[in-house]
Amino acid sequence: MGFLDLESVKKLKALADKGCDLRKEGFLTPERISSHQKSACGFKLLWGCERVDSEIMDALFALAKEGKALDKMKAMQSGEVINSIEGVESENRSVLHTAMRDFFEDRIASAPAKKASDEAKKEFDKLKSFLEKEGSKFDHLIQVGIGGSELGPKALVIASTAYGKKGKSVDFVSNVDPDDMARAFKGINLKRTIVVIVSKSGGTMETLTNEKLARSYFEKEGIDSKDHFVAVTGKGSPMDDPSRYLGCFYIWDFVGGRYSATSMVGGVALAFLLGIEGYEAILKGASTMDKHALSAPMEKNLPLISALLGIWNRNFLEMATCAIIPYSQALLRFPAHLQQCDMESNGKHIDRLGKRVKFHTGPVIWGEPGTNGQHSFYQLIHQGTDIVPLEFVGFEKSQYAEDLDVDGTTSQQKLLSNLFAQAVALALGQKSDNPNKSFEGNRPSRMLLAKQLDPFHLGALLAYYEHKVAFQGFIWNINSFDQEGVQLGKKLAVRVIDEFKGKNDFILGKAFINELKGL
Amino acid sequence: MGFLDLESVKKLKALADKGCDLRKEGFLTPERISSHQKSACGFKLLWGCERVDSEIMDALFALAKEGKALDKMKAMQSGEVINSIEGVESENRSVLHTAMRDFFEDRIASAPAKKASDEAKKEFDKLKSFLEKEGSKFDHLIQVGIGGSELGPKALVIASTAYGKKGKSVDFVSNVDPDDMARAFKGINLKRTIVVIVSKSGGTMETLTNEKLARSYFEKEGIDSKDHFVAVTGKGSPMDDPSRYLGCFYIWDFVGGRYSATSMVGGVALAFLLGIEGYEAILKGASTMDKHALSAPMEKNLPLISALLGIWNRNFLEMATCAIIPYSQALLRFPAHLQQCDMESNGKHIDRLGKRVKFHTGPVIWGEPGTNGQHSFYQLIHQGTDIVPLEFVGFEKSQYAEDLDVDGTTSQQKLLSNLFAQAVALALGQKSDNPNKSFEGNRPSRMLLAKQLDPFHLGALLAYYEHKVAFQGFIWNINSFDQEGVQLGKKLAVRVIDEFKGKNDFILGKAFINELKGL
Repeated sequence: MGFLDLESVKKLKALADKGCDLRKEGFLTPERISSHQKSACGFKLLWGCERVDSEIMDALFALAKEGKALDKMKAMQSGEVINSIEGVESENRSVLHTAMRDFFEDRIASAPAKKASDEAKKEFDKLKSFLEKEGSKFDHLIQVGIGGSELGPKALVIASTAYGKKGKSVDFVSNVDPDDMARAFKGINLKRTIVVIVSKSGGTMETLTNEKLARSYFEKEGIDSKDHFVAVTGKGSPMDDPSRYLGCFYIWDFVGGRYSATSMVGGVALAFLLGIEGYEAILKGASTMDKHALSAPMEKNLPLISALLGIWNRNFLEMATCAIIPYSQALLRFPAHLQQCDMESNGKHIDRLGKRVKFHTGPVIWGEPGTNGQHSFYQLIHQGTDIVPLEFVGFEKSQYAEDLDVDGTTSQQKLLSNLFAQAVALALGQKSDNPNKSFEGNRPSRMLLAKQLDPFHLGALLAYYEHKVAFQGFIWNINSFDQEGVQLGKKLAVRVIDEFKGKNDFILGKAFINELKGL
Repeated sequence: MGFLDLESVKKLKALADKGCDLRKEGFLTPERISSHQKSACGFKLLWGCERVDSEIMDALFALAKEGKALDKMKAMQSGEVINSIEGVESENRSVLHTAMRDFFEDRIASAPAKKASDEAKKEFDKLKSFLEKEGSKFDHLIQVGIGGSELGPKALVIASTAYGKKGKSVDFVSNVDPDDMARAFKGINLKRTIVVIVSKSGGTMETLTNEKLARSYFEKEGIDSKDHFVAVTGKGSPMDDPSRYLGCFYIWDFVGGRYSATSMVGGVALAFLLGIEGYEAILKGASTMDKHALSAPMEKNLPLISALLGIWNRNFLEMATCAIIPYSQALLRFPAHLQQCDMESNGKHIDRLGKRVKFHTGPVIWGEPGTNGQHSFYQLIHQGTDIVPLEFVGFEKSQYAEDLDVDGTTSQQKLLSNLFAQAVALALGQKSDNPNKSFEGNRPSRMLLAKQLDPFHLGALLAYYEHKVAFQGFIWNINSFDQEGVQLGKKLAVRVIDEFKGKNDFILGKAFINELKGL
């Protein structure tokens, strides 16, 4: 059944017409804030500043039930074939990123999930041995990979650098832009550098080109690159070749790039930086959130509640974008990872029945850390003509615990004060005789709080968003796990490359190349 | 006269209803690509992949004329008081960021512009002397500032690092998050570090707090911080105090933060990194684009054409966002700068007559470099349910010229091939029997090309966007130069900070603080 056919969708449309106004006298109270929250895995989700009342929340939970959100989550984590579209050729695979970290309590018992997590554990142990043997030879790691082979791992590395081992650093090269590589190789000690090449297929154009470019830096110095290069790839791929790599770690086609950060795709760099125990803590956090998403009842299920509120804002209040604003500078690249995770998963125009959808799927996801954003795009968020719903993330304690009391409060308290103030300002607005100083308010936000952004909570945060995205896809009944939309551009790029070689076959490609000449 | 009252707006509405389809047989041809382009200041703007025909372009130029776009640009660059709203209290100032770099040919003759550029030149010369005297004492510069005191300068620093002097590096701290400072101060040589504190008013909460925190690192090491700190601030502000700073450089209230990157706000760090001549080249590029925006006729005026195409997409084709995708990793933080420049300028709900607007103003601006984005959010751009218009930026040559021929083409050629391929793929789409492999096409983009991202072209690129934003504001008849929308959050943040101190006066702030305790 398609999304628009669901009974609860009709009900929600009617409720949206009726509206729910945060500015109403006596609506946004301390009691509302404390009653609209749930906790799990060390996180607390607060949604008192969303435009919902109990009738709307009931209808949203009915939607989750009708859309079989929890059943589908169970099917996913059990390894059923859910990456598929009925009646047409599709990837037809399991989706088992959760198995990549299912090493702890209450392991999933189903055969495919168990097999996947056993294999993942084997890679984890291999990595541990590898770092014990080779880790001390290197101070600096450069990861070469693009898309999910960069965004998630980089977001996690930056977010956890505060916990990094002394003397270890990590950098990333993703773009086929040669300047990205030149920048990364400028002024480093090659003898102490390890390069991790990540490509599931072993055939990503950018990554293979960059691997050759990266090896050329070593060769120029007379260093045998094979002693410095590690592969993360699928078993049997062209990159699965011990004669060319110091080590080779496996990933599988049932783990999509954008969901692969906790697999070896992120694992090698994270374990190098944090030690194997730091990486393990991330996995444990993620796995704890996986079990919560799987087993918690709807009314207490954090990623599900967040998914439902997102659907409310997107499909019923017609908001085209969603901003993710972490009040933590360490999460600087988290929004870029979530752009991929969310938009590549849910930016789809057909549903799992192969039908063109007649409703909005995934919104544009964007964001930057607060308080920085407050001095930038918040002008539009407060007084622009479109409403942008916000997801805030905040932590009680800082990572480094290097803080100073200035005028009676610490910087961390000032940071959190700004977060809380924004939620209230957006919800209530402000009347003024000066139209330029008036704020219309009724602009929704929700807030995810935890004690500290340590490796455990970082893993849980990653998984929270993965499951929020998956739940939305389940309810929209789209396939969140393929990415056919990236293929056409790839195909045409090969044809333009041929034009650079003088093939003279793709006239539009040639036309653009001609424009270059006239510069 | 308001935007909706313009004759050309009515005409454009009718044309939008009629539509313009890029997929039409014989529409997108090599001839169209080469006839829909204009060059200036070393840049070429190509808009053959926008959904416009000659009738629409004529109507857009009529709109620019009716909206007095060029007259208002002249008023701005001449220093007339244009930061104002009729009939209500407003900032009532000139807007003279262009004067900050008007040191070259054809200087603007009007008295206020001349006075401003004379003063700016004085600061430039002061900076030159300062660096001659003090520059060799330092290897590392940390700039502390937020909003425009970070985003523009940081975007420029990253974009020009390839041209940096050997041994010089620059970092930024913006967030009140104490971890941002801790990260920046980890493992650096304080004796060789200079810290630049930037605040026009001398009263920005984040920056003052961070200045104290930054000085504490020096004091802990027994180093007198005054020999390491430089102020960039307004004359007579609390920070204009030679007893506390090694140097003090001035900025003025007629230069808005988001337009201040070429003033001393960005100048100290850029001249430190690139040498004064590198900074001067950026200024020269920006000034060249300023004169072009001022003097080029509409049909050849690059930022104006871009502004008009943006208005077409936003107001007539109803697109809520706009993605800026530089095919250059060096422009990594340029979209974040443009988020501020554009959204803080044009995310407004009242016009210059003080009336609530009944049309859409500034869109959400977002983006990441290509090809990276292709492996991330492009899924949504190709197959999502909303159309996202794109602005591509590309360069014929790389910065470092460290490139490798792999399979007959260089990385730079592969990079450009991807750019060109995306424009075509988005415009034409692809039919398929498999609905999951079908691309609807008719998705618009435009493209800005230049030979190389060197300091001159970087300056011109910055100014191009500043003027695109200004032209859109002129045509919408809004005030692009204030930011009242950021005030309410600031005010409430002070009240939450008081709650952390136990004031017990702001019950909603207190409610959120209570939620922290339960974590």
